[in-house]
Amino acid sequence: MKALVQNQARIFEVGPRDGLQNESVILPIETKVSLIEKLADAGLRDIEIGSFVHPKWVPQMANTGEVAKTIKRKEGVSYWALVPNDKGLERAIDSGVEHIAVFMSSSETHNRKNINRSVNESLKELEKVIDKAVSQGCVVRAYISTVFGCPYEGEIDFNRVMEIADALLSFGSSQISLGDTIGIGTPLQVKENCARITERFGSADAFAMHLHDTHGLALTNAFAAFLEGFRNFDSSVGGLGGCPYAPGAPGNLRTEDLLKLLDSVNIETHVDRPQADEIAKWLESSVGFDLSTRLSFQ
Amino acid sequence: MKALVQNQARIFEVGPRDGLQNESVILPIETKVSLIEKLADAGLRDIEIGSFVHPKWVPQMANTGEVAKTIKRKEGVSYWALVPNDKGLERAIDSGVEHIAVFMSSSETHNRKNINRSVNESLKELEKVIDKAVSQGCVVRAYISTVFGCPYEGEIDFNRVMEIADALLSFGSSQISLGDTIGIGTPLQVKENCARITERFGSADAFAMHLHDTHGLALTNAFAAFLEGFRNFDSSVGGLGGCPYAPGAPGNLRTEDLLKLLDSVNIETHVDRPQADEIAKWLESSVGFDLSTRLSFQ
Repeated sequence: MKALVQNQARIFEVGPRDGLQNESVILPIETKVSLIEKLADAGLRDIEIGSFVHPKWVPQMANTGEVAKTIKRKEGVSYWALVPNDKGLERAIDSGVEHIAVFMSSSETHNRKNINRSVNESLKELEKVIDKAVSQGCVVRAYISTVFGCPYEGEIDFNRVMEIADALLSFGSSQISLGDTIGIGTPLQVKENCARITERFGSADAFAMHLHDTHGLALTNAFAAFLEGFRNFDSSVGGLGGCPYAPGAPGNLRTEDLLKLLDSVNIETHVDRPQADEIAKWLESSVGFDLSTRLSFQ
Repeated sequence: MKALVQNQARIFEVGPRDGLQNESVILPIETKVSLIEKLADAGLRDIEIGSFVHPKWVPQMANTGEVAKTIKRKEGVSYWALVPNDKGLERAIDSGVEHIAVFMSSSETHNRKNINRSVNESLKELEKVIDKAVSQGCVVRAYISTVFGCPYEGEIDFNRVMEIADALLSFGSSQISLGDTIGIGTPLQVKENCARITERFGSADAFAMHLHDTHGLALTNAFAAFLEGFRNFDSSVGGLGGCPYAPGAPGNLRTEDLLKLLDSVNIETHVDRPQADEIAKWLESSVGFDLSTRLSFQ
């Protein structure tokens, strides 16, 4: 992805994937398609529409192929899908997806429990997947999970996170999304580690910050990352998502809150804030989500 | 007030005053007394218990004298009251209050509309009030309102804010509370102006940050101030308060959110977080406040 000028930010909307996959409701194709089209209409230029993981593990994402084929694509918008492996990549490509997200954890235990591989085994697998995706003309981003803490291992060595990022970039990823998977990051920790990224990689252009609002600090953490030069942020409309380790807790950083923050520091996103607010309202009134615990500020 | 070491913060709890004065409900004395005693029990060491403004203007505060006389005082806790003028000061002292808060605005128009004086007239009046309070053994803090923006004038010259602070300190105020009265401050603006305070006054020890959460940025703004050395923060339990210019909007920065932030950056406050949470719950369940729009994170 191209480098950003410092007064612009790019929001990677994860609501239809990271958001919905952590909600108990399974949305029909037409509702997902509506959501994705509304997000594109609001000005979001990177939308993660679903994932090609096995439906046995994530039934919420079972219809991603059909969603990908059904959406009316808008010029200038990238429609991303998550793939766990080579098979998922093939399904994604067969469905016309050209923007591929891969994932692994920086925690051995979390990676083992989630992906049933060691971190090194994941790196080897992803090298092949990324290489194949790129050779077929796809653009790839890679998520690294639990970068600020793991539910099993606690603290994570950030040097290890940066080594993994280095490897994934060298395999051909265009962007690394640093995931605070359980929303445990704290503002000074985020700031310090983002400064280390900027120092090691020259800038934060190839990085995105992926925050969860488990403890109400996601927006402050986003500001901490912003101060160290981060201009790519993942977020979820309406705060869709929840956290599997904290029932009832807020989910991903809300897109509307992120827009408010970026607006307040005069950063351009090309996203229409009232339209984003409308989408959250629509998710509540028409789709039936109860986002009240996540909709703190109107 | 004594200077703080950098790994400690001092929370000035404004719920019973700035909070309740902006709520439509008028609490009976016994409920206010309970609230104040619960706050002290939770470890808050500076509690603003009410104000001695004319009850015609702020009926919610009419019983402050009786509240002051009724509360069971706890060792090590300072019980503050707001006074608008000499007459208010005398009523406060008569009620046994030894910790006095005075106030004025950094905006000519806001000051005129609120206090019916020019900024310079307010300074002259406060010089006398502060001098008298100090000579009678009181400790004084001074609020400066609208420091990050005024509902009538828009932008405020921060040089003017610092000149007013300088004057109020020279009159004998121990602390200046910088009020983002309408909650319009933005993180970079707060950070930049806090840096100017630290530069001009050598440290932020004599300053407190008073934030309102009108746009959901209060916590991020608190972090911005923290980064520039601020360790004194005003907040309101349960986010009591509201904003007179934005009906239904969140009020003061919530004490519970502030505690969460300070905890996350390893700053000691001596306040018991679960107890603070309990007070907010009690305000809802027993006192009958609807704090739902302000209680975003549990």
